[in-house]
Amino acid sequence: MYRMEKLQNQLKTWRRDLHKRPELGWCEYQTTAYIYHVLKPLCFTLHLGNEVSSKEKMGVPSSEVDRLHFKRAEEAGIDAKLLEKMAGNQTGLVATFDTGKAGKHMAYRFDIDALPIFESNDASHLPAKEGFRSIYDGHMHACGHDGHTAIGLGLAQLIHEHRNELNGVFTLIFQPAEEGVRGAKAIVEKGWLDHADYFLAGHIMGQPLGTVVPGVASALATTKLNVTFTGKSAHAGGNPEEGRNALLAAAQATVQLHSIPPHSQGATRLNVGTFHAGSGRNIIADRAELELETRGETTELNAYMAENAKRIIRHTAEAWGVDYAIDRVGEGISAKSDPQWLEMVKRALAASNLVEEVSDRYEAIGGSEDATFMMERVQQHGGLATYLLYGSTLAEKHHHPFFDYDERVLEIAVDSLWRLTLHLQ
Amino acid sequence: MYRMEKLQNQLKTWRRDLHKRPELGWCEYQTTAYIYHVLKPLCFTLHLGNEVSSKEKMGVPSSEVDRLHFKRAEEAGIDAKLLEKMAGNQTGLVATFDTGKAGKHMAYRFDIDALPIFESNDASHLPAKEGFRSIYDGHMHACGHDGHTAIGLGLAQLIHEHRNELNGVFTLIFQPAEEGVRGAKAIVEKGWLDHADYFLAGHIMGQPLGTVVPGVASALATTKLNVTFTGKSAHAGGNPEEGRNALLAAAQATVQLHSIPPHSQGATRLNVGTFHAGSGRNIIADRAELELETRGETTELNAYMAENAKRIIRHTAEAWGVDYAIDRVGEGISAKSDPQWLEMVKRALAASNLVEEVSDRYEAIGGSEDATFMMERVQQHGGLATYLLYGSTLAEKHHHPFFDYDERVLEIAVDSLWRLTLHLQ
Amino acid sequence: MYRMEKLQNQLKTWRRDLHKRPELGWCEYQTTAYIYHVLKPLCFTLHLGNEVSSKEKMGVPSSEVDRLHFKRAEEAGIDAKLLEKMAGNQTGLVATFDTGKAGKHMAYRFDIDALPIFESNDASHLPAKEGFRSIYDGHMHACGHDGHTAIGLGLAQLIHEHRNELNGVFTLIFQPAEEGVRGAKAIVEKGWLDHADYFLAGHIMGQPLGTVVPGVASALATTKLNVTFTGKSAHAGGNPEEGRNALLAAAQATVQLHSIPPHSQGATRLNVGTFHAGSGRNIIADRAELELETRGETTELNAYMAENAKRIIRHTAEAWGVDYAIDRVGEGISAKSDPQWLEMVKRALAASNLVEEVSDRYEAIGGSEDATFMMERVQQHGGLATYLLYGSTLAEKHHHPFFDYDERVLEIAVDSLWRLTLHLQ
Amino acid sequence: MYRMEKLQNQLKTWRRDLHKRPELGWCEYQTTAYIYHVLKPLCFTLHLGNEVSSKEKMGVPSSEVDRLHFKRAEEAGIDAKLLEKMAGNQTGLVATFDTGKAGKHMAYRFDIDALPIFESNDASHLPAKEGFRSIYDGHMHACGHDGHTAIGLGLAQLIHEHRNELNGVFTLIFQPAEEGVRGAKAIVEKGWLDHADYFLAGHIMGQPLGTVVPGVASALATTKLNVTFTGKSAHAGGNPEEGRNALLAAAQATVQLHSIPPHSQGATRLNVGTFHAGSGRNIIADRAELELETRGETTELNAYMAENAKRIIRHTAEAWGVDYAIDRVGEGISAKSDPQWLEMVKRALAASNLVEEVSDRYEAIGGSEDATFMMERVQQHGGLATYLLYGSTLAEKHHHPFFDYDERVLEIAVDSLWRLTLHLQ
Repeated sequence: MYRMEKLQNQLKTWRRDLHKRPELGWCEYQTTAYIYHVLKPLCFTLHLGNEVSSKEKMGVPSSEVDRLHFKRAEEAGIDAKLLEKMAGNQTGLVATFDTGKAGKHMAYRFDIDALPIFESNDASHLPAKEGFRSIYDGHMHACGHDGHTAIGLGLAQLIHEHRNELNGVFTLIFQPAEEGVRGAKAIVEKGWLDHADYFLAGHIMGQPLGTVVPGVASALATTKLNVTFTGKSAHAGGNPEEGRNALLAAAQATVQLHSIPPHSQGATRLNVGTFHAGSGRNIIADRAELELETRGETTELNAYMAENAKRIIRHTAEAWGVDYAIDRVGEGISAKSDPQWLEMVKRALAASNLVEEVSDRYEAIGGSEDATFMMERVQQHGGLATYLLYGSTLAEKHHHPFFDYDERVLEIAVDSLWRLTLHLQ
Repeated sequence: MYRMEKLQNQLKTWRRDLHKRPELGWCEYQTTAYIYHVLKPLCFTLHLGNEVSSKEKMGVPSSEVDRLHFKRAEEAGIDAKLLEKMAGNQTGLVATFDTGKAGKHMAYRFDIDALPIFESNDASHLPAKEGFRSIYDGHMHACGHDGHTAIGLGLAQLIHEHRNELNGVFTLIFQPAEEGVRGAKAIVEKGWLDHADYFLAGHIMGQPLGTVVPGVASALATTKLNVTFTGKSAHAGGNPEEGRNALLAAAQATVQLHSIPPHSQGATRLNVGTFHAGSGRNIIADRAELELETRGETTELNAYMAENAKRIIRHTAEAWGVDYAIDRVGEGISAKSDPQWLEMVKRALAASNLVEEVSDRYEAIGGSEDATFMMERVQQHGGLATYLLYGSTLAEKHHHPFFDYDERVLEIAVDSLWRLTLHLQ
Repeated sequence: MYRMEKLQNQLKTWRRDLHKRPELGWCEYQTTAYIYHVLKPLCFTLHLGNEVSSKEKMGVPSSEVDRLHFKRAEEAGIDAKLLEKMAGNQTGLVATFDTGKAGKHMAYRFDIDALPIFESNDASHLPAKEGFRSIYDGHMHACGHDGHTAIGLGLAQLIHEHRNELNGVFTLIFQPAEEGVRGAKAIVEKGWLDHADYFLAGHIMGQPLGTVVPGVASALATTKLNVTFTGKSAHAGGNPEEGRNALLAAAQATVQLHSIPPHSQGATRLNVGTFHAGSGRNIIADRAELELETRGETTELNAYMAENAKRIIRHTAEAWGVDYAIDRVGEGISAKSDPQWLEMVKRALAASNLVEEVSDRYEAIGGSEDATFMMERVQQHGGLATYLLYGSTLAEKHHHPFFDYDERVLEIAVDSLWRLTLHLQ
Repeated sequence: MYRMEKLQNQLKTWRRDLHKRPELGWCEYQTTAYIYHVLKPLCFTLHLGNEVSSKEKMGVPSSEVDRLHFKRAEEAGIDAKLLEKMAGNQTGLVATFDTGKAGKHMAYRFDIDALPIFESNDASHLPAKEGFRSIYDGHMHACGHDGHTAIGLGLAQLIHEHRNELNGVFTLIFQPAEEGVRGAKAIVEKGWLDHADYFLAGHIMGQPLGTVVPGVASALATTKLNVTFTGKSAHAGGNPEEGRNALLAAAQATVQLHSIPPHSQGATRLNVGTFHAGSGRNIIADRAELELETRGETTELNAYMAENAKRIIRHTAEAWGVDYAIDRVGEGISAKSDPQWLEMVKRALAASNLVEEVSDRYEAIGGSEDATFMMERVQQHGGLATYLLYGSTLAEKHHHPFFDYDERVLEIAVDSLWRLTLHLQ
């Protein structure tokens, strides 16, 4: 049907190039430029910089982290005009292609960011052994987004090659900052999903190679909060009454946050994951910082947790006379794939000699995913949305310094998306 | 100088009569009537019912407790007209005597209420042995206020006998509800202390018999709070999210209340002394009740504690979405006796053959005392105020089921007050 | 098939007699005697007193509560010999009938205790209107165990009438103290379930009259704990360091108990339902009492909660230097009906003109049930066990002062049990 | 009496040299070498390295901090042999001089370490303006120990100049690591104070220049603890039950630590000053680190706090199933100057034209001081010990980036110590 062997090598090259230069969310300057240069010669119109997402970006990193990435991009020789467009965390890219012929509007999401993980340089780790380990110590593509990006590029290549045979409109979204569920919402708010008839997102997962699982039941809804308590320091021995103890307020809040009652309608979670406060043992701490998250099986259950959490934070601060700031740095809603996908995917992939099984082993994807914001928007406008898992054996689980996957999953994923695209024409 | 032997027997009789019929604060119906009948034949004008204290009485007991006492008074044959005047917790009595001659205005405070303690009926306990134990099980004069009342009656007797030789004005205040520091403030607010040149209050204490300690340094300032949290019950297994857990909110508040920081200017205290919540183990509690107190070496230190406590209570309730009510049921300020008293008392009692020592072994009276409100008012108007301790060996410490004192302290106290009165003429 | 009309009136009479004389768990003296007298003339061997349950009874009430019930039984003229046998909370009764013919061993459980609820005497409440309201204010059959007992008596009557046609062995267990899941375990430990081939228990539930739901999925496993912290009292103002604050320790424990992490394998619950501590606001509390419960979707999940709870209680007590006692006063495990029951019950009741629907609307019975201990024991020995719901409209939900059910459910339940019995012969 | 003008300039030079090269406690490599080189030509025997203090040093800094200081010392050209002796935090120096003549044994303590404070480089800050600001950003002599060291050198100079006129033995202790009350104990354990007849320590304080305050009432006793909780990480959404939450345990402990009851015998303090825990918001934290301190007006009161704190830490860790380590990194006891000092100092300094007032404005020195260990040891062996304050106006309070004092205080202090030395001969 098309020259898969050629694509296969190409996918591997793309993936390895990307793997060497991991960038944290909202700082994907080199990654975006890479995508730009691959897609430039093709049939797509490319949207960059402030066209991609709205200004209200959640969880933008510190200016220090941003500067580090920007400087790396400059040092890597990224075109200055491109960099100027992206400056200020305006990363990511949307590629659109209008066939000019009536037909469906297809939208796809590919996430492109990496993680703050120190990649193993053990000889047993393939990227280390074969020379494509991260060149930036402390940053790593440990969740497969390098592969997701390559899959997007592969799909674009096929659309381009068959551009004269296709109908309708195609939108390929290369999304920044999926880690921490930060980036999707700002893209949705820009309107990119408002007219899609079909929406597809996906993830490489630890299932047998050749397996595709459409219609993943649901992701946990989640809210990520950064909380800062600001009190007043005082000498703990000399003038304890003059302090406003931010550390103690934060501890009291932490204790209370962990005792929000469970909910009869399903599982809920809360975790205060980090706590940093104080400058010295004999000083009443004037500052405490918490990073926490709530989760729920549904958007409503997560909202129940998040609302309770915010009320507890607010009033505990007031009980102790300290100021507080709550910053929502990430959010994911729960979403359900439309139920008809299983059959549609089965039919579409029936003839594939790469896909061995279209499975209904639905399961929660564990953790959260902000493609759900896109799914929700598409469904609100009457479109159909789903989330696919592409099976691969994994060297280690996601977010592990030894994480790696079988690169053959890349062509399987491209094949699946392409066959589905044709099927839905 | 006067017939002390006769008075001695009289004091004992009064004390024992009163001891048999202890009444809780704001319910001293029989006690007030007893005082009334003793003073009636004398030279005093007697003020009863709504003349004694303002409407804003702190720590009024439940209507159930009040009814019990009122019924006892009716059953004891107390005059119906007197009872009618006192109905609604308008207990206590102020006796005034204006000599018509220019002179000082002397004011004295005698507290008259008893405690919710079950008096021992062990043979070793003198009131049990000699037949004047409380006839009301669960109520007991275990703090000596029966004696204080008798001392007040004794002083009144002497004033009456010498009425023609005296100058100035005399105000004897028989105060209800000193326990829990509830009664003095409402009397002060009625204005009874506004014109006093000298003010004296006192207490029987565990010091050698014959010792009088004037100018007790200070009492701890204190605030007594009753707190009720009102939430919403729900089945703890079935619908935990529907509850508003008053018990948990109260526990969170208790934990936080006990961590109010200490103060560099002096000792502070907080105690949540009682905690009652919930109706069953499988029901989320919709009600929790706390009794707590704050204390401080000064009025300001106590205010620091009380303000912090109220802020914590308020915001913890709000953090947990429960309602709250804070009821101030008692309050004592700190007060200092004017320093010149030690010398004045020494001179006045030099010739007494009952008083063996006027001591300067000042010490904090431990706990709190609301005569301090009266002392403060007198001092604010330029008068001099003090607080005397009358020494007696004690069978057991105050508030103990075996508490008892040496009845000879009564005449020593009367002698002291009378000699001081003459000295200050 | 048998004279149902006659039984119908009988069931109503029994139920109303029992309803008038509700008794709390482990104090069912009159109730047991009533059962005894009904069954005495029949074919059963009756086991009473120390034959019924092992000595290790959970959640035995205070001696005060026991005395109250025992005295009521004496006043009601219960036979002294019977009372003597039951004295010391040895209530309940096991009725056995061995046909002498080979066959199955059938066991049934009927719970007989009432609740500490003040029954409504509103005219709209049928028991009040028709004169069979509880004669003991504050105690009420508000969970239908009066009906369950009547059902057991009805089944016994039918077995007796058909005693010559039946094969195998019959064991009818009239269990005390189901409320609080206290009584079943001690009966199981006595061995009564060790030889049963089939076990049936049931409950009147709010479903349409005529519906029977066999094979109720599962009950929540639960553990009921009474916790006492014992510290040392001290004057909160004078000697705070000398106290060992049981109230504060209990509050700290409560806070921590409510923050035991959730479990990925299913729902868990914890509730501190009551909290009583302290004797006065100015005394550091030397005693605090908590009533709490844990629950879990499975026995393992409940064990996870209970173990964590006990560890927190133990170490929080030690952190505050107070003693503690943990008393397990109730326990229920989770249990599953054997899956074949749905079909068996459907077949058995197909011809009933009382039962309109055998439903598979399985649902958790909400809360807990200690018949699960019996089910588990039977299943461990290779028998089959199930739990049936008998549908009835309810005037109000269980445990409500207005709780009442349609008495026609009694004959439907008896008919169901009898037809099942014949079917399983 | 001696050429004070010359010494004056010398003191200033020493002080400014030292001020430029501040070193943290237990890392005073350059400072010790500086002292060594000044004292080398004089009459003293110098004790360095492992002779100074015992091995059990409290609060030794991280090896990283140590390496930084050691490298600085190497770069500064400090003699390699000296450095070798001091390697491994064996800093500080003891200078002894035995006159060979019978007489008193005098011991003096001078503390030499600096603080982790970023010194101001504002033009209004004298050290910045006059070019002797710290050359090590982030480290600063902000507590006057540069001056204390200079005072010690000045006293040594005078002893040397008058060596032939003096009797008895002289021990000058240049103590490392006074900040955090870490260094004194290990020196005491080495025996340096076992034979002293008189002991003197002192501090520059914010009192009028020319004032000397001997016999400072007392320092607060204190204990400094570093606490580490070690749990087990787990995915907070996926497997909450598998975690052992060190962060939550630390928060629970913090809350409880701050509610240790006050003590009737005097002021107590506790402060958890820093709290660092966790690696990510979605991970249950496996590590939490607290820095805390307790204080008390007396050694006993501090022990009361420290014991309670340790018990709470231990059992809270166990309640949450996490490991804990408690590291005592600093300790100061309370101590009282012997009362005869006021008169002795008054007499000794009567003729000084530098000292304008010997004040009895005793006050707690605020915070803690580990010279108290030395005072205690001297007093235990029958010697007399005191602590002097040397008054100076201050540019800003201690530990402030703008801290500075009037350098004239240096000669006043030397004059005082020297006159006292002669007086006590």
